[in-house]
Amino acid sequence: MAEQKEGRRRVVVEGVEPSVDGGRYPVKRTVGDVVEVQADVFADGHDRLGAALRFGRATDAEHEVRMSPAGNDRWCGTFRVTTVGRWCFSVIGWVDRFATWHEALLKRHAAGQDLSLELRVGADLVREAARRATGDDADRLRSLADRLRAARPEEIAGLVTSEALAALTEAYPSRRRETASARFDVEVSRERARHGAWYELFPRSSSKKTGEHGTLADVAATVPSIARMGFDVLYLPPIHPIGRINRKGRDNATVAEPGGPGSPWAIGTDDGGHTSVHPDLGTVDDVTRLVDALRANEMELALDVAFQCAPDHPWVREHPEWFRTGPDGAIRYAENPPKRYEDIYPFDFETPAWKELWHALRDVVVFWVDRDVRIFRVDNPHTKPFAFWEWLIADVKRRDPDVLFLAEAFTRPRVMERLAKIGFDQSYTYFTWRTTGLELRDYFTELNAGPARDFMRPNLWPNTPDILTEQLQRGGPAAFRMRLFLAATLGANYGIYGPAFEHMEHMPREEGSEEYRHSEKYELRWRDPSGGSAMRELISLVNGIRRSEPALTFDHTLRFHDTDNDQLLAYSKRSADGSNVVLVVTNLDTGRPQSGWTALSMTELGLAVDAPFVARDLITGEAYAWRGPRNYVELHPGRAPGHLLRIESPLHAASEGSA
Amino acid sequence: MAEQKEGRRRVVVEGVEPSVDGGRYPVKRTVGDVVEVQADVFADGHDRLGAALRFGRATDAEHEVRMSPAGNDRWCGTFRVTTVGRWCFSVIGWVDRFATWHEALLKRHAAGQDLSLELRVGADLVREAARRATGDDADRLRSLADRLRAARPEEIAGLVTSEALAALTEAYPSRRRETASARFDVEVSRERARHGAWYELFPRSSSKKTGEHGTLADVAATVPSIARMGFDVLYLPPIHPIGRINRKGRDNATVAEPGGPGSPWAIGTDDGGHTSVHPDLGTVDDVTRLVDALRANEMELALDVAFQCAPDHPWVREHPEWFRTGPDGAIRYAENPPKRYEDIYPFDFETPAWKELWHALRDVVVFWVDRDVRIFRVDNPHTKPFAFWEWLIADVKRRDPDVLFLAEAFTRPRVMERLAKIGFDQSYTYFTWRTTGLELRDYFTELNAGPARDFMRPNLWPNTPDILTEQLQRGGPAAFRMRLFLAATLGANYGIYGPAFEHMEHMPREEGSEEYRHSEKYELRWRDPSGGSAMRELISLVNGIRRSEPALTFDHTLRFHDTDNDQLLAYSKRSADGSNVVLVVTNLDTGRPQSGWTALSMTELGLAVDAPFVARDLITGEAYAWRGPRNYVELHPGRAPGHLLRIESPLHAASEGSA
Repeated sequence: MAEQKEGRRRVVVEGVEPSVDGGRYPVKRTVGDVVEVQADVFADGHDRLGAALRFGRATDAEHEVRMSPAGNDRWCGTFRVTTVGRWCFSVIGWVDRFATWHEALLKRHAAGQDLSLELRVGADLVREAARRATGDDADRLRSLADRLRAARPEEIAGLVTSEALAALTEAYPSRRRETASARFDVEVSRERARHGAWYELFPRSSSKKTGEHGTLADVAATVPSIARMGFDVLYLPPIHPIGRINRKGRDNATVAEPGGPGSPWAIGTDDGGHTSVHPDLGTVDDVTRLVDALRANEMELALDVAFQCAPDHPWVREHPEWFRTGPDGAIRYAENPPKRYEDIYPFDFETPAWKELWHALRDVVVFWVDRDVRIFRVDNPHTKPFAFWEWLIADVKRRDPDVLFLAEAFTRPRVMERLAKIGFDQSYTYFTWRTTGLELRDYFTELNAGPARDFMRPNLWPNTPDILTEQLQRGGPAAFRMRLFLAATLGANYGIYGPAFEHMEHMPREEGSEEYRHSEKYELRWRDPSGGSAMRELISLVNGIRRSEPALTFDHTLRFHDTDNDQLLAYSKRSADGSNVVLVVTNLDTGRPQSGWTALSMTELGLAVDAPFVARDLITGEAYAWRGPRNYVELHPGRAPGHLLRIESPLHAASEGSA
Repeated sequence: MAEQKEGRRRVVVEGVEPSVDGGRYPVKRTVGDVVEVQADVFADGHDRLGAALRFGRATDAEHEVRMSPAGNDRWCGTFRVTTVGRWCFSVIGWVDRFATWHEALLKRHAAGQDLSLELRVGADLVREAARRATGDDADRLRSLADRLRAARPEEIAGLVTSEALAALTEAYPSRRRETASARFDVEVSRERARHGAWYELFPRSSSKKTGEHGTLADVAATVPSIARMGFDVLYLPPIHPIGRINRKGRDNATVAEPGGPGSPWAIGTDDGGHTSVHPDLGTVDDVTRLVDALRANEMELALDVAFQCAPDHPWVREHPEWFRTGPDGAIRYAENPPKRYEDIYPFDFETPAWKELWHALRDVVVFWVDRDVRIFRVDNPHTKPFAFWEWLIADVKRRDPDVLFLAEAFTRPRVMERLAKIGFDQSYTYFTWRTTGLELRDYFTELNAGPARDFMRPNLWPNTPDILTEQLQRGGPAAFRMRLFLAATLGANYGIYGPAFEHMEHMPREEGSEEYRHSEKYELRWRDPSGGSAMRELISLVNGIRRSEPALTFDHTLRFHDTDNDQLLAYSKRSADGSNVVLVVTNLDTGRPQSGWTALSMTELGLAVDAPFVARDLITGEAYAWRGPRNYVELHPGRAPGHLLRIESPLHAASEGSA
């Protein structure tokens, strides 16, 4: 072991939170958040300590706030992140020599000991503090030092207990040989990262005229009706030219029927690749026009990033070195043996030309960022190297920190976590398949109370074009209502594959499959515009409540409450400032009415244990006069999927005249 | 973000265990232990991976063993630490291209696909493996490659499923662009670190003749009787000259009575300091003779390291700069205001001469190491800087890795943990004050199942010269028996302040105090040699069982079992190889008999849920034919403090003729 350079540094700072993997990755927060930092700060012996939280933008981390002891050597401090981008913080601890002296002095004084020597010690400390102070404070401290040194016996009591002595010296501590923790990073995103309702549709199915190929202009025309349902983000599957070679047919048939449109994820033809728009959809300018239409409706666009090529993608010809070839010299199509995806060539990220490949792919994202797209839903990121994404996301965010990335990685837990750690702002989740109360409770506790809470933002989808769950296939309208209700209230971020969801499409390709029958992935669809109105009404209502109740825009305040009926799942959310509290009780049984009693954690609701309160159902408008943890609930799947209750004080409720 | 140097490294290694603070501190193990390493090893995509555990002495960490997947991307591997000192390990992961190809090939084969192209791919992989192999294996691999390349259709099935193909290529994987974790350290100690029974006595009280000052030679004469009780370590409070200035008197009186011996912790006179022996005790050579006497009885010596000085210690004169002076120029004595310890000068670790001070203190330890002392009980280490201990312990262990340090830090949890992390081999614990079943269960679960298990080795003391607990003051002989029993069975390391314990001394200095009345810290004591025999008998019995049952020499296998009576605390321990299992049931009520039913975790006992087994009480010799989790227990405090049961199979028990 090397000889110590400074063996007199006595303070230890460790156990700093929040942190991800000990500081290897940034903690995620959104603009306006208060970051609550804790650390163990301690030293040998019994001296009093001081601690501070240093924080700021990564380029200018020079702000400081004093931390407070929280017991058992734990110290706390907070700071607010006010701009988008990378912030950082560290924790600093020091021996507070003045406080140590002062505490001892008070004890000596109380014990009636002779203080003359101690007052001289203190005078020296105060004089030192004066050298760190400026202006009037310096003068005051010097005068205090003189008084300590020259104190007459009858003055000592007053001096020792003087507020001025304590306050002034605390303001100018000696921080000689202070200890600073490592630096911890915070990635601060705009608010949309924390909450939003997403709507997915296939633009080619958006024509009002049966038999016609929908266009981006058709989508733009639909925006007001989607906005009226209360969605924040419109997400489109790939809008690029679709390969003609080995094009897939209806229901994923190996050979396309004549004129079949193919899968939008088979990207690229002679017409262009990832920076081109399918000629039947429109032009790049139409994308910009769609962005404008969305903005006018307070929505924004999310494009799909699917890094793979159809065999006729221009890059296959221009950069064959970006693909893997077999011993016969032919480029190898995608496979998951024995399954074959002949319409898709994956990139070979192990190519010697990996740097050029990385740059080309990064430039795809930058191309669309330059066209005002700020959200990307990334297709299968888990099949490309982590290092690539870490680099790409950091590079794009350095250009524009408002850009957000959603990882569509339905894969193993460690892989999903890693993608979130290295930069993805949001993640698809296992919510799609979690159906029982215990499953939901365990999973959302893990997401919101485990280590993942600091780096993973869940985005909940009841359905996607790839996933029609068994529950939706079999559960009837009540299942659609219940899953929408759960997604929108359990998740600050959620989304639906909208047209299929509204129309409650529930027929699988075949028994045991999660694929839709006649999936839009492989063909155009025209839906009866008069259908789906009941579901649209519920969606509008729920999204409207998400906007009126700030509590629903937060994930980390989610808490589950017990009930005496397994089919009744109860949970609450608070807004960051605690002023808005929502309690949800969902009936997980889509077939039968369920009733039971709640066992609410009253403190989580911000209420005294036996407090009376009003639970106002924001769906029905009814107000229930409840008291304490135990209240009766009865839910009928034919009516509402659950109670969405705002917790109100009786007074507040009365003032609105509806208690 | 800097451009990546190698963007094709695809494998991630993280979540490596065991580790302390992410690898900042070594994990503690003892010679012969098998270190079980786990890590998350994963990559993008669906390729098969390989992983290895690299390990060895810190100076030669070149051994490697393959790891196995344990599900959910977790991989496991083990290695045995066979020598004392610093070891290290790291985890390495790579994409196993051959296994990936082979798995896909089997699936393609099963699906009846054309394999000709794949066999050529495989032939290239096998040929590559041949280049990594040597001797016959290289030849065999080359021949396999040729056969793959030239396989006739009827040969393919045999080749594809051939064991030789799988085994040979697995032996020579391509580890191109493998990922290695950081290096994790393991501090390997000799077995005494893991388990031992300690006996503390004041040598000056060891004379058989009332009124005479005991000597180290008297202690040596007592060694056989202590050894017969089954102790492993004899620990002596400081044996150095005791300061005369401000010497404390009986029961810590400010002024010593004439001829009063003073406190052994007030170290140093003109006769010498920390490397001298009190003239009334003997000489440095007597220490060596005592070490020899102990060795002859398979015991060893622990000396006290108390880094503080009496006012007449030679260092006060020679190195006044190592002490803190007041404004009057006088050296300041120890204080914990308003308490004063005028007989002790603490060192000033913030002195500019800290380096010289560190070296001098290190040299004290080295002095005694050079005289064959290998264990040090360190007095109040928490009042000296952590950096100092980290340096001293590492420095001493580099000279002799057999040296062990026990931290006598009865202080706050984070401070105790830190001392353990930075190098102390063992720690005093809160056991001394944990009395209820819930307290004991919570605390020992924290010690043995929480993060502390990898860096903190508890040493349990029912009493010390500083601590006569309320329970021992009031609980009578049953309390002494019960606390001895708990310490010796809950802790692989435990100790007693022996003479006082055997004689069940229980009078406090005053009501509410934990100090002994007429404490040996301030006066000589002569005890009736005929007293204490009952306790000595129990101690001998329990220590004997500790030696016959390897399970009791391990801490990490401690598991608690439920009972239906709060006063009955049940727990078990297994030996590392599982061959020895001991179940303890203690009656925590020292006043009344208690009975109840156990609810044993049968798997923790290595038994099937409803298995019959024999629970042999090693104290009474009785054997109980039990079955399954639920068994009746009745304990009388007047008889034994509890059951100390060896779990035996009925067959085994029968073969001894006592089932």
